[in-house]
Amino acid sequence: MRTAADDVRSPFVASLDCITFLTDYGLEDGFVAACHGVACRIAPAVPIIDITHLVPPGDVRRGAAVLAQTIPYLPSGVHVGIVDPGVGTARRPVAISAAGGIFIGPDNGLLSWAVSAAGGATHAYQLTNGELWLHPVSATFHGRDIFAPVAAHLASGADIASVGDKIDVADLVSLPAPTSRIHDGEAEGEVMSVDRFGNVQLSIAASDAGRMGIGLGSSVILRAGRRQLTLPYLETFASVAPGELVAYTDSAGLISLAVNAGDAAERLGLPPGAHVRLSVTPSP
Amino acid sequence: MRTAADDVRSPFVASLDCITFLTDYGLEDGFVAACHGVACRIAPAVPIIDITHLVPPGDVRRGAAVLAQTIPYLPSGVHVGIVDPGVGTARRPVAISAAGGIFIGPDNGLLSWAVSAAGGATHAYQLTNGELWLHPVSATFHGRDIFAPVAAHLASGADIASVGDKIDVADLVSLPAPTSRIHDGEAEGEVMSVDRFGNVQLSIAASDAGRMGIGLGSSVILRAGRRQLTLPYLETFASVAPGELVAYTDSAGLISLAVNAGDAAERLGLPPGAHVRLSVTPSP
Amino acid sequence: MRTAADDVRSPFVASLDCITFLTDYGLEDGFVAACHGVACRIAPAVPIIDITHLVPPGDVRRGAAVLAQTIPYLPSGVHVGIVDPGVGTARRPVAISAAGGIFIGPDNGLLSWAVSAAGGATHAYQLTNGELWLHPVSATFHGRDIFAPVAAHLASGADIASVGDKIDVADLVSLPAPTSRIHDGEAEGEVMSVDRFGNVQLSIAASDAGRMGIGLGSSVILRAGRRQLTLPYLETFASVAPGELVAYTDSAGLISLAVNAGDAAERLGLPPGAHVRLSVTPSP
Repeated sequence: MRTAADDVRSPFVASLDCITFLTDYGLEDGFVAACHGVACRIAPAVPIIDITHLVPPGDVRRGAAVLAQTIPYLPSGVHVGIVDPGVGTARRPVAISAAGGIFIGPDNGLLSWAVSAAGGATHAYQLTNGELWLHPVSATFHGRDIFAPVAAHLASGADIASVGDKIDVADLVSLPAPTSRIHDGEAEGEVMSVDRFGNVQLSIAASDAGRMGIGLGSSVILRAGRRQLTLPYLETFASVAPGELVAYTDSAGLISLAVNAGDAAERLGLPPGAHVRLSVTPSP
Repeated sequence: MRTAADDVRSPFVASLDCITFLTDYGLEDGFVAACHGVACRIAPAVPIIDITHLVPPGDVRRGAAVLAQTIPYLPSGVHVGIVDPGVGTARRPVAISAAGGIFIGPDNGLLSWAVSAAGGATHAYQLTNGELWLHPVSATFHGRDIFAPVAAHLASGADIASVGDKIDVADLVSLPAPTSRIHDGEAEGEVMSVDRFGNVQLSIAASDAGRMGIGLGSSVILRAGRRQLTLPYLETFASVAPGELVAYTDSAGLISLAVNAGDAAERLGLPPGAHVRLSVTPSP
Repeated sequence: MRTAADDVRSPFVASLDCITFLTDYGLEDGFVAACHGVACRIAPAVPIIDITHLVPPGDVRRGAAVLAQTIPYLPSGVHVGIVDPGVGTARRPVAISAAGGIFIGPDNGLLSWAVSAAGGATHAYQLTNGELWLHPVSATFHGRDIFAPVAAHLASGADIASVGDKIDVADLVSLPAPTSRIHDGEAEGEVMSVDRFGNVQLSIAASDAGRMGIGLGSSVILRAGRRQLTLPYLETFASVAPGELVAYTDSAGLISLAVNAGDAAERLGLPPGAHVRLSVTPSP
């Protein structure tokens, strides 16, 4: 995966047009503003896009899913992801270059799905160059003291190789991919996430649906635990009457379950991680 | 309402200084960031102002009220409003020009009060020009795939006539105006909205209060359902002791009810839409 | 505290690179956007950083704590703080110059800890120059009508002396400093704040811990009401096993209590303002 050229020059990144942040810091404290402020002092002309700061505290998997699904729509930039229950311990702070820009955060898997979605890591560095950090470095707020200032230096034109020691991209921590497999005409998957509307996103790609014989207008059978129910596969949640269940292709290209004008996650009792199986009803 | 000139040139919009967003997308997912990212890629130099993303899911009326009350204080710009329970169905995506800029969103009434507040629609277009959209267009996320990119193209100088087919402004969907009428010295109205502080905003303009004989220092009688209570009409909620009820002119020029350092909506049991009547107590 | 020079020239402020906002306005209404919009119309090129808008309604003390702990990480700018339960009454709107920029808000103590953290007020003015305001001025939304436009004028280069009448900095309202004292080897303090993670920040500076004989690896005794418990003083919350309690130096340099991957405030029943005492266990 490494080439000879890697050792003589750092990867070319076409342009870094913004800094983005995804964290579990919440919005009621001043944590996000401190990161913005630190970045703004170093790189005042670089716009900041907040992906979200409401990842449930410490929920690395949820953070990884939101990051991976949002990155394809953001400008190329320095993408800072911080859901870091191990802050201050041995987990490595890293910078990873990929097609969508440079990803910065703890090496705990948070960035891995987004990096894959961006085509995979081309280079990776451990953040060891303290000259780019804010001192004194606290033990619990590396967002403010390490990640934000390093991101701002990179967005201002610093070479990624300046952030620290090169590491092997094969050594980066990856979250296990969500279960998603098709066999015997049945798709097995899990709940990726539940959005604000209660829509239940499955780890089953809509592009795989065809292989199972599912198309617009199909009736699909959903099995979760001991429960089984049949619902139509249609274009959108508003394709059924209010209060009705429907399966559809969501905006990330995954099969999702919704209740029109209602909350499918609540109705179905399906939290993130829950196992489900989908199949198509036999044609009569 | 249309003039001959309409057909030969598109309306002149003095300047579009920003893109604003009002949605019910919430802040816990990456939906808002995806819209920002798409806009930023097309129009990187245009500032974005978020009005709110916490409109209760699908609550078009609430979205319309917040939008209409906020627009007068925003720069001229492209104002994107998305509370769109019918996304992916037959409702039209539209762009409407008015004094405050260009309003973009679903034609479901969401934009109508703001457009009225801005002096009324001068021109309207259905968004049919797919060349301005992000492809593939999802069925459920037109904010990202249609509204944000069209807004960004307009903010970058595209002519509003390029977005699609001209439609008659008289055909735009309008929300019914909230009840507000004065007769026999009594004002009849409804609860427009309840803000974060629990202040209850009525659909009764303070400028009408005079016609009913209400002025600063008056005692007013509030009737809601079978209940009736008397409260003073004063300058602000802090004009009464903590825990006391008061009526006052709010920052939108409407009569509101508050409990100083308390929650009037909770105390009075008055949700948005509740009917109320106000009158002044007879002078002794 | 005043010098002769005060009367002949207004204080020199090196540069004001941004406008920041901290309020209790919440995010579900259009209040924040109205302030942004008003500022953006006057000072379109000045970036805005939102510190937080989720200060609990009317909680001046909480707002003061967040502001004071965040300001050191923000660019020099015009810092607008609005937690203003007395809006529309006799409390003065003020502008205060200090090392970190200019602080604007109600003179109710909200700004006082931040101003102290920035080295103290050098000059102060009551906002009395209505020419800088947005008219008509509402009785209840001075953020939009007074504070935001004055901040934007200052950020655009207006002289602070133009905002109104000079007042004596000694007359500014100050919040009482939180209890924090050390005697007989015991630190007495109170809960400053509880963050999103449930971490309990005490008013006891970590730099004072040494004076009490507390260092990394010490066992500390926490007394709150009738309860007493012993916990280790370590580098970070992740230094203990999940579910375990720990004391540590937080990112503001204060002693904090956490449960690794848990909520210490809930576990300990310690809300902001609660009194606590800390001591070190005697060496065996």
